[in-house]
Amino acid sequence: MTLTREDFVALDQNDVLAPFADEFHIPDGMIYFDGNSLGAMPKAAKARAIEVIEQEWGTDLIKSWNKAGWFNLVEKLGDKTATLVGADKGEVIYADSTGLNVYKLVAAALDMRPERKVIVMEGSNFPTDNYMVQGLIKQLDRGHEIRFAEDGDILDAIDDDVACVCITHVHYKTGHLHDMAAITKKTHDVGALAVWDLCHSAGALPVDLNGCNADFAVGCTYKYLNGGPGSQSFMFVAQRHHGDALQPLTGWWGHDAPFGFERDYRPRKDIRQFSTGTEPIVSLAMSEVGLDIFMRADMNEIRKKSLKLCDLFIQLIEERLSDYDFTIVTPKEHARRGSQVSFSSENGFPIMQALIDAGVIGDFRAPDIMRFGFTPLYVSYVNIWDAVDRLVNIMQSDGWDKPEFKQVGAVT
Amino acid sequence: MTLTREDFVALDQNDVLAPFADEFHIPDGMIYFDGNSLGAMPKAAKARAIEVIEQEWGTDLIKSWNKAGWFNLVEKLGDKTATLVGADKGEVIYADSTGLNVYKLVAAALDMRPERKVIVMEGSNFPTDNYMVQGLIKQLDRGHEIRFAEDGDILDAIDDDVACVCITHVHYKTGHLHDMAAITKKTHDVGALAVWDLCHSAGALPVDLNGCNADFAVGCTYKYLNGGPGSQSFMFVAQRHHGDALQPLTGWWGHDAPFGFERDYRPRKDIRQFSTGTEPIVSLAMSEVGLDIFMRADMNEIRKKSLKLCDLFIQLIEERLSDYDFTIVTPKEHARRGSQVSFSSENGFPIMQALIDAGVIGDFRAPDIMRFGFTPLYVSYVNIWDAVDRLVNIMQSDGWDKPEFKQVGAVT
Repeated sequence: MTLTREDFVALDQNDVLAPFADEFHIPDGMIYFDGNSLGAMPKAAKARAIEVIEQEWGTDLIKSWNKAGWFNLVEKLGDKTATLVGADKGEVIYADSTGLNVYKLVAAALDMRPERKVIVMEGSNFPTDNYMVQGLIKQLDRGHEIRFAEDGDILDAIDDDVACVCITHVHYKTGHLHDMAAITKKTHDVGALAVWDLCHSAGALPVDLNGCNADFAVGCTYKYLNGGPGSQSFMFVAQRHHGDALQPLTGWWGHDAPFGFERDYRPRKDIRQFSTGTEPIVSLAMSEVGLDIFMRADMNEIRKKSLKLCDLFIQLIEERLSDYDFTIVTPKEHARRGSQVSFSSENGFPIMQALIDAGVIGDFRAPDIMRFGFTPLYVSYVNIWDAVDRLVNIMQSDGWDKPEFKQVGAVT
Repeated sequence: MTLTREDFVALDQNDVLAPFADEFHIPDGMIYFDGNSLGAMPKAAKARAIEVIEQEWGTDLIKSWNKAGWFNLVEKLGDKTATLVGADKGEVIYADSTGLNVYKLVAAALDMRPERKVIVMEGSNFPTDNYMVQGLIKQLDRGHEIRFAEDGDILDAIDDDVACVCITHVHYKTGHLHDMAAITKKTHDVGALAVWDLCHSAGALPVDLNGCNADFAVGCTYKYLNGGPGSQSFMFVAQRHHGDALQPLTGWWGHDAPFGFERDYRPRKDIRQFSTGTEPIVSLAMSEVGLDIFMRADMNEIRKKSLKLCDLFIQLIEERLSDYDFTIVTPKEHARRGSQVSFSSENGFPIMQALIDAGVIGDFRAPDIMRFGFTPLYVSYVNIWDAVDRLVNIMQSDGWDKPEFKQVGAVT
């Protein structure tokens, strides 16, 4: 049975998550499928920022470190995030950027397995994780190497030489979802430690770090968690490793007595050791607004809707655009995909430019990937229909075949 | 001749910097002498934050990485800061926290002097610099050591074993100003590299990094530069070292082709290599508001007023509080001090609490230091008179000798 727009309207009418859309600002006429790159703005973010700027900074000034809880915000937000990723209170902290946190976690893991020299990573991963570990092992200069593996080969790459496996849970380009339980189990079977990058899974689907017995994790808050541009990253360190796992970027925020101003570093014995220095507070505080929306949403409902949005998008593309060169790259199997759908297409760049021009915001990843991210809290079913409709119009009218859409520019 | 309040009113009337005070928000009745810890809020900061949140994030969304210049903001702010610290365009970049940047710069310096094993630092410095370098050399595990020296001993501590000297230009506790030219010259004479921490000098007094031939520097933007709580740090790398000095926290923002998504790291050959990952943009963007005020102020006038504010504060304390236990810790000689005045006092903690309660915001540093920071753009001469007046009242009435002022709490 061929789908119609009415089917999508009906799905929205029965969507338990539909009311959340009102909490986000989406410009009029825009269909936003790029929440996997930069999450939409929660409407409450502005008021929170003004409160931090006017009251906490402007009026209370230095007192806000205690009075407004600035110093402990990194742990407060961590505890909220813990509930989204299957972690316990005290296991998650906010700090710095994803890259810096990958460095900290892999460094801590290598330090716990000094006799082993191999780190298993995915070569096609978003490259900053690889870059950070390349920087780390070059600096250590102790014969470490990265063993790059892809998708189906990862389990086979994990052997007794491996100190640590550092994989991104959902692939940034293909949307492939790795089996966290199986990879972590194999990692532990050989005596290694698992570091998970949740940049494309935290807030996108249920994550169960402790259920999978993960050792470490890092995640992004400006994508599915709507923390604002470049908002701080978070880290998970399993309780059993606290005090043994120590990261080397040892700043005063991770000192056992940060206000004692001692000359020598003494590590805290808990998650706080993974914190380094003073965090940009306005950006950090705004992250809580996005998190607080998630505290009221059911992650299982988010997953259910996410899968359905993706299924319908794929189905419509296949039904309505079969005459064109769109090859699905994302696995169709639910258990193997995150919350995005990627197609490869020879003309992917100009087509995506034309689509953006028509108000459907996805993004392009070289050499030929068109990415569409689905964020169930503010993407509706009818958005799917309308987006594909606009894409059909573009393809049928050769609307992408214009010089202005073919210029390759910086894409983030 | 004894000073009167009228003398201070007259000084304000003739102060060329006085109009700048209107650009900052200071709560009614408050005298704020803690801008060396958290700079006051520029009134324009709120509007800038709202613009970033509503327009750039909320409406333009992902396009803002290019359209609003988010990706290049770290260099744009760097170029503005360069004019305040005697650096050239392209030599300064914003990134991360002071601690992380100390790590990057010292790591780069040690890498350029592999045969040398000593880093000269000041043991009494604000400890995060020491902590970061302790973490670095522990991680390198190649026999490096920190040679701690204080004040007058620093030049003597610099010998042929030294790879790098990493000193804070103005001491956070005493306000002592080190001789950047002399220390850098001795450092170069022995073949080592100089890393300067400008946390308490950038925005507080004229700094001449290139005039002193400095190699590297790091600075804070949330103190004298009014960037907002925890706003990002900046780094200086002298042009002559670009391409040779490479820092090990190698994230995608420092890659030669960040949007090429290559598997392996290839360093940029300029200041951008010192950048690591995505920066919290709202906090970063607000930093520009404070900087833009400095772009219109004359740093020599700032220094002139700063010295006079400090001189008068010292003079009044000595004239009016000679019966009490206040010992000046800050050097009186202009060439040897920054923009703060510190006194030691046995009852420094409760006295500072009583003073804060009376609306004069300074801070306390263990074990017995009362710190007063002077920020000429928004501190007036009459503030000095009134602050000392309130302190006199407190001392004469034993206003500090109350249980609520004696509880030692967290002080940042």
